[in-house]
Amino acid sequence: MTDRYAPSTHSPARAPAGQPARLYHTPLSPFSRKVRLVLAEKRIEVELAEERYWEQGPELFRRNPAGKIPVLRLDGMLLAESQAICEYLDETVPSPPLMPDSPAGRYEVRRLCAWFDDKFNAEVTRPVLNERVWKKVQKTGYPDSRVVKAGLSAIKAHVDYMHGLLEERRWLAGPTISIADFAAAAHFSCLDYISDVDWDRSDLVRQWYATIKSRPAFRNVLADQMPGIHPAPHYALLDF
Amino acid sequence: MTDRYAPSTHSPARAPAGQPARLYHTPLSPFSRKVRLVLAEKRIEVELAEERYWEQGPELFRRNPAGKIPVLRLDGMLLAESQAICEYLDETVPSPPLMPDSPAGRYEVRRLCAWFDDKFNAEVTRPVLNERVWKKVQKTGYPDSRVVKAGLSAIKAHVDYMHGLLEERRWLAGPTISIADFAAAAHFSCLDYISDVDWDRSDLVRQWYATIKSRPAFRNVLADQMPGIHPAPHYALLDF
Ligand SMILES: N[C@@H](CCC(=O)N[C@@H](CS)C(=O)NCC(=O)O)C(=O)O
Ligand SMILES: N[C@@H](CCC(=O)N[C@@H](CS)C(=O)NCC(=O)O)C(=O)O
Repeated sequence: MTDRYAPSTHSPARAPAGQPARLYHTPLSPFSRKVRLVLAEKRIEVELAEERYWEQGPELFRRNPAGKIPVLRLDGMLLAESQAICEYLDETVPSPPLMPDSPAGRYEVRRLCAWFDDKFNAEVTRPVLNERVWKKVQKTGYPDSRVVKAGLSAIKAHVDYMHGLLEERRWLAGPTISIADFAAAAHFSCLDYISDVDWDRSDLVRQWYATIKSRPAFRNVLADQMPGIHPAPHYALLDF
Repeated sequence: MTDRYAPSTHSPARAPAGQPARLYHTPLSPFSRKVRLVLAEKRIEVELAEERYWEQGPELFRRNPAGKIPVLRLDGMLLAESQAICEYLDETVPSPPLMPDSPAGRYEVRRLCAWFDDKFNAEVTRPVLNERVWKKVQKTGYPDSRVVKAGLSAIKAHVDYMHGLLEERRWLAGPTISIADFAAAAHFSCLDYISDVDWDRSDLVRQWYATIKSRPAFRNVLADQMPGIHPAPHYALLDF
């Protein structure tokens, strides 16, 4: 594995200048979706390139020595890590702003992004998608229904937590929409594709998701199909 | 579990005003150490309160609905998530600066923090500490030597990657010291406590760690002891 992190792969790795912006992604990756949503909100046009990251080709490691997607080719750089990418986009393309003005406001956005990308991912998205999507796509076995069940049970506490936030706030992190809403919506949209969200649990969370889903930025993401895995019937409907 | 994320636990949760700054932490937690190092660099004095997070008491969830440490009580708030905390500290206490001025510079710091807190943690720190420390402390079993071995083997590629970075840069993310150096040093210091770093692999990485270790900010961290687990003989030595 050593040679994969070769010095020549430093990041911000340089990409040949003059190439169009391109996102290396996977359709049902919540981290890829978060970046796509932020790109679309900022009206940055990118080509999409699907990356089968589990095949671990050398190109994957050349673009990102961590061997992960998403990777964004932009401004002659190859950018990795969804949160670092989204904050870079917000700092360099200020409109519309997706981070609040105050340090406490930005803190809260970052805390919630970590909530979804670390905690929610570990308890819900990763186990559920692993069993229900990746094992099939990557041909690594059959779904373990206990793992799926535990993941779907864990989602309840998260929906309740979000419900509590939305009782006091217009958006998850405060009065304005932020990267935190897109981080959360990215996870929910992956689960919703395979129909694993109980939208009846909270009208506030359903309303929040319906509002986000109707934004133009969401349209492209909802059009994605994962070969061999059919989306739930309500998946792309704005009224669900 | 649902009641743990009760609405009353929103963050930035409010702490009664006028209380001294306090960090709820665990001695060999890399995320706690990262925050401690940044606090010390900024010369912010805090009380330390040891939190046995694995006992999952209600106080843990009251302070941080995610049920994780570190949690920092500061300015009448209860702050969680190490990266969100460190960036908040850097934005509110600007001296010394631990983030670069340019968006590309900040991107690189954030990418590397995620490298250590996500990838390095998953491949090295978490499995190795889990087997060698937490199973003993939390009385959950005996170390699995295969897991330890895999973790210690994975560390090599990371050291080589850091070596490559340090061939071109004074600090991990660029010409100036940053949160990325403290994130990385926090992981290495936890592993070094149990003597699991092969410092002979790279003189550049050893020199980088020696320089960081000799900073006043590191002194307190190195003085920590984990009851029942003795530090390696060279652990607190500046010349190792
Ligand atoms: N912290 C990363 C996580 C990205 C991630 O875990 N991507 C997955 C696909 S959803 C991946 O590439 N996994 C391959 C691997 O971890 O080796 C980010 O936010 O971008
Ligand atoms: N993303 C968090 C991770 C913190 C974390 O994982 N802390 C561990 C101890 S090192 C913990 O509290 N684990 C308890 C749990 O995950 O339930 C951060 O950066 O602060």
